[in-house]
Amino acid sequence: MATEQREISVSEFFTKNRHLLGFDSPTKALLTTIKEAVDNSLDACEEAGILPELRVEIHTVGENRYRVMVEDNGPGIVKEQIPRIFGKLLYGSKFHRLRQSRGQQGIGISAAGMYGQLTTGRPVVIESRANRRRPAHHYELVIDTVRNEPVIKKEREAEWPDKAHGTRVEIELEGIYKKGRHGVESYLRQTALANPHVSLEYLAPGETEPMVFPRAIQELPAEALAIKPHPYGVEVGMLMRMLKDTKSRQLKGFFQSEFSRVGPKAALSIIEPSGLQPTTSPRRVSPEKAEKLIEGIRHTKIPSPPTNCLSPIGEEQLVAGLQQQIEADFYAAVTRHPSVYRGNPFQVEVGLAYGGKLPADELITLLRYANRVPLQYQAGACAITRSVVTTKWKSYGLQQSRGALPTGPMLLMVHLASVWVPFTSESKEAIAGYDEIIKELRLALQEIGRKLARHIRRGQRERDAAKKRAYIERYIPHIGVALQEILDLSDRQEKKLVATLTDTMYRSRKV
Amino acid sequence: MATEQREISVSEFFTKNRHLLGFDSPTKALLTTIKEAVDNSLDACEEAGILPELRVEIHTVGENRYRVMVEDNGPGIVKEQIPRIFGKLLYGSKFHRLRQSRGQQGIGISAAGMYGQLTTGRPVVIESRANRRRPAHHYELVIDTVRNEPVIKKEREAEWPDKAHGTRVEIELEGIYKKGRHGVESYLRQTALANPHVSLEYLAPGETEPMVFPRAIQELPAEALAIKPHPYGVEVGMLMRMLKDTKSRQLKGFFQSEFSRVGPKAALSIIEPSGLQPTTSPRRVSPEKAEKLIEGIRHTKIPSPPTNCLSPIGEEQLVAGLQQQIEADFYAAVTRHPSVYRGNPFQVEVGLAYGGKLPADELITLLRYANRVPLQYQAGACAITRSVVTTKWKSYGLQQSRGALPTGPMLLMVHLASVWVPFTSESKEAIAGYDEIIKELRLALQEIGRKLARHIRRGQRERDAAKKRAYIERYIPHIGVALQEILDLSDRQEKKLVATLTDTMYRSRKV
Repeated sequence: MATEQREISVSEFFTKNRHLLGFDSPTKALLTTIKEAVDNSLDACEEAGILPELRVEIHTVGENRYRVMVEDNGPGIVKEQIPRIFGKLLYGSKFHRLRQSRGQQGIGISAAGMYGQLTTGRPVVIESRANRRRPAHHYELVIDTVRNEPVIKKEREAEWPDKAHGTRVEIELEGIYKKGRHGVESYLRQTALANPHVSLEYLAPGETEPMVFPRAIQELPAEALAIKPHPYGVEVGMLMRMLKDTKSRQLKGFFQSEFSRVGPKAALSIIEPSGLQPTTSPRRVSPEKAEKLIEGIRHTKIPSPPTNCLSPIGEEQLVAGLQQQIEADFYAAVTRHPSVYRGNPFQVEVGLAYGGKLPADELITLLRYANRVPLQYQAGACAITRSVVTTKWKSYGLQQSRGALPTGPMLLMVHLASVWVPFTSESKEAIAGYDEIIKELRLALQEIGRKLARHIRRGQRERDAAKKRAYIERYIPHIGVALQEILDLSDRQEKKLVATLTDTMYRSRKV
Repeated sequence: MATEQREISVSEFFTKNRHLLGFDSPTKALLTTIKEAVDNSLDACEEAGILPELRVEIHTVGENRYRVMVEDNGPGIVKEQIPRIFGKLLYGSKFHRLRQSRGQQGIGISAAGMYGQLTTGRPVVIESRANRRRPAHHYELVIDTVRNEPVIKKEREAEWPDKAHGTRVEIELEGIYKKGRHGVESYLRQTALANPHVSLEYLAPGETEPMVFPRAIQELPAEALAIKPHPYGVEVGMLMRMLKDTKSRQLKGFFQSEFSRVGPKAALSIIEPSGLQPTTSPRRVSPEKAEKLIEGIRHTKIPSPPTNCLSPIGEEQLVAGLQQQIEADFYAAVTRHPSVYRGNPFQVEVGLAYGGKLPADELITLLRYANRVPLQYQAGACAITRSVVTTKWKSYGLQQSRGALPTGPMLLMVHLASVWVPFTSESKEAIAGYDEIIKELRLALQEIGRKLARHIRRGQRERDAAKKRAYIERYIPHIGVALQEILDLSDRQEKKLVATLTDTMYRSRKV
């Protein structure tokens, strides 16, 4: 057996398991490629404090073969980093920090390039300019999948007369272009909905004029800041590694400096039950003592982690985005307070549009988002879908069959923002059902359900009132005529009687 | 941005994404750990041609804390390989070959050890003996997650007086022990059902006597052999890598020696449209020419790959296993001929038990298997479930609501055997819906559905016939008496008449 054992590179692994990354069908591969590039562009722009301007192009280059181009006005990438960012899986800046961003794993764009390379043999082409005073750089890269390292095929300076900074990536791949719910256009439309600060142009295959999604608000979302881990999310294995890696020389200082929300008092409370001294060197803590420290953490009351690592869309922006894109009678949004799962802060938001021209006899449209990115596939496996389906919408005035989405003229957006979204797979299509997340989703849905119920009830009341009014206006004149005949009233008397009757009726109405 | 970019080790990645590997809840973590160890033991035994004898133990060591032990009579592991097999993710012998086995990724058992280490800080303990003349080796390992490399904590020789060869692995972990459908016992029972050649002992937490699943057949399954890739499953990226890596000096020889089923004629037919010569050096093929070669492959008729890489359970063994474990009236099995998806041979098998004491008013029980391993989670996301649900069971005599499993007294086993099972995630819980696989699943289900329908119809016919017989036997004597009175027949005449009538009636029955 000895000789056959060997190492598997992460690129080989994902080449064989491409469906894990969202490349299981040619249709999905095309969408995933665009999605990964757009995610990266938006993250880069926002981190640099630049209002994003993106251009997405898809060109047909053969049967089932496309060339995808995504260009941004972001900060650009320094020359040395380009090859590994685009030509190595599991490489990036977002994995090791706790802060809301669209990308988190350092796989996406390299995997898209690898897929292109596998299906067409063509390299990824990157041009990037980081500085107005310097030229742009042009790279053509492939991945050496056995070593999971980039191989530079071409490298040169490039002319960028019009743009001071930005990045453009081009990938040629086998794919199938489709319109409709899982299509690129739908994905970009949903992206614009949850990112009203983004300006987006999209040139579809075969078109000459781009589709334009203009910016709806002129301000960047509040910047998300990186935070330290919270003690409640730490297990003994991670604690032991942190104890080994820390620069702190004393246990007390270690807890105060390496974690969120641990002050001197909490640090002492954590250490005390272990029998260790506050001055003990972190490196000298044994596994047994580390377990005692974990127990100490569990028995110490520590405030929730700071939530400035999150950047929710916000109720106003949610409603503004919906109003711009969806024609409806009623709009509402709920942004819950941040909560925590496994020490990771997260926040749930829900927005809805109801009535108007939305189809009344169909299941509602549910749009799922994680860190402002629309989730297009695997709805059934997602905690968001499950939470919507198990919410009792009948109490809020919608029809609903058991185990199904409610029926009614409604579009529902659900957004989960977190420093670490627990996706059910690397392709980031569905959110895993952690209890704390399910709970917050439920509460948010119930809250917006109550708003919806008030609107529907108000509508019902108004319809009832209008009906009653119609009755009054229809029948009272006839009563007037009848009474005039019976009581032999003059026309003036009859008119007065009708007026009095009408007035009394209106005032006696309950609504 | 430059300074923040860094490499992410695969261990770090899966530590943060543990739910991808099946460690998302303490209940599942315990089951996954056992499953990974059992998979490895069974693979090792079968590869070495040894009838597997396994012992699984779970010991409670604290609140929500267990020590799992799995011991086999396999060939053992040579000393040098132990650390990396158990202490490094993406390391193994099964990834780079095309041959049916339970493990395929080189992640499972190391990930289980890593989870144990994370939640309890304890090392994995391995003892293995590869040779009767040598001692066993004892190792205690942890994984350095930053480097994805094993760290040896202890290493020594061990006494194994009773066993000539075998491996024992012990992992301490945080978990929750549950009985029921997703529990360990259920998993082991299902394993025994699909692996009648395995003898298994299981000591549950708190028990003193092990549960025994005896071996039902005394023969190993046919050995699965490794095959070469089939041209139809090769894309341009992979072809280019193979062209670069080959030892063949000429293109024609390359195609004949590196692929399944390519003879001299097929090789020439593949090469011809590219304009290359059969004697061209593989290393000198450009990306453009590689694409032409792929086109050449598509236009060349090449026989399906050999299927001795597969080792199905077999119809007889399926029925034998069901008969041993399930009390029912009717058993049936279907083993389809092998088929191919993306160049990978695969084979679908279905077995069923019907009637008897199985509950008639509930949804049927569906057991899913991939390469003889029971799949316990994510039923909804699995191509097997989808195929069963979309099969029209009403035509086969079962009740069924739209989008649901059929209702009836039935247990259905569905097994997919392949050299590479396309799982929807690394935790290997559901099979991705490739068209070719869905098609074979459908055909297998329809075939067994027809068998079931015949049985149910025969039952129906027999009940109908019995009813008719009962009518005849009940009414004819009365007719005899009436006729005797009307026609004034003697008793003998009446008896004869009744006999003739009865005989005529029986013979005139359509069934």
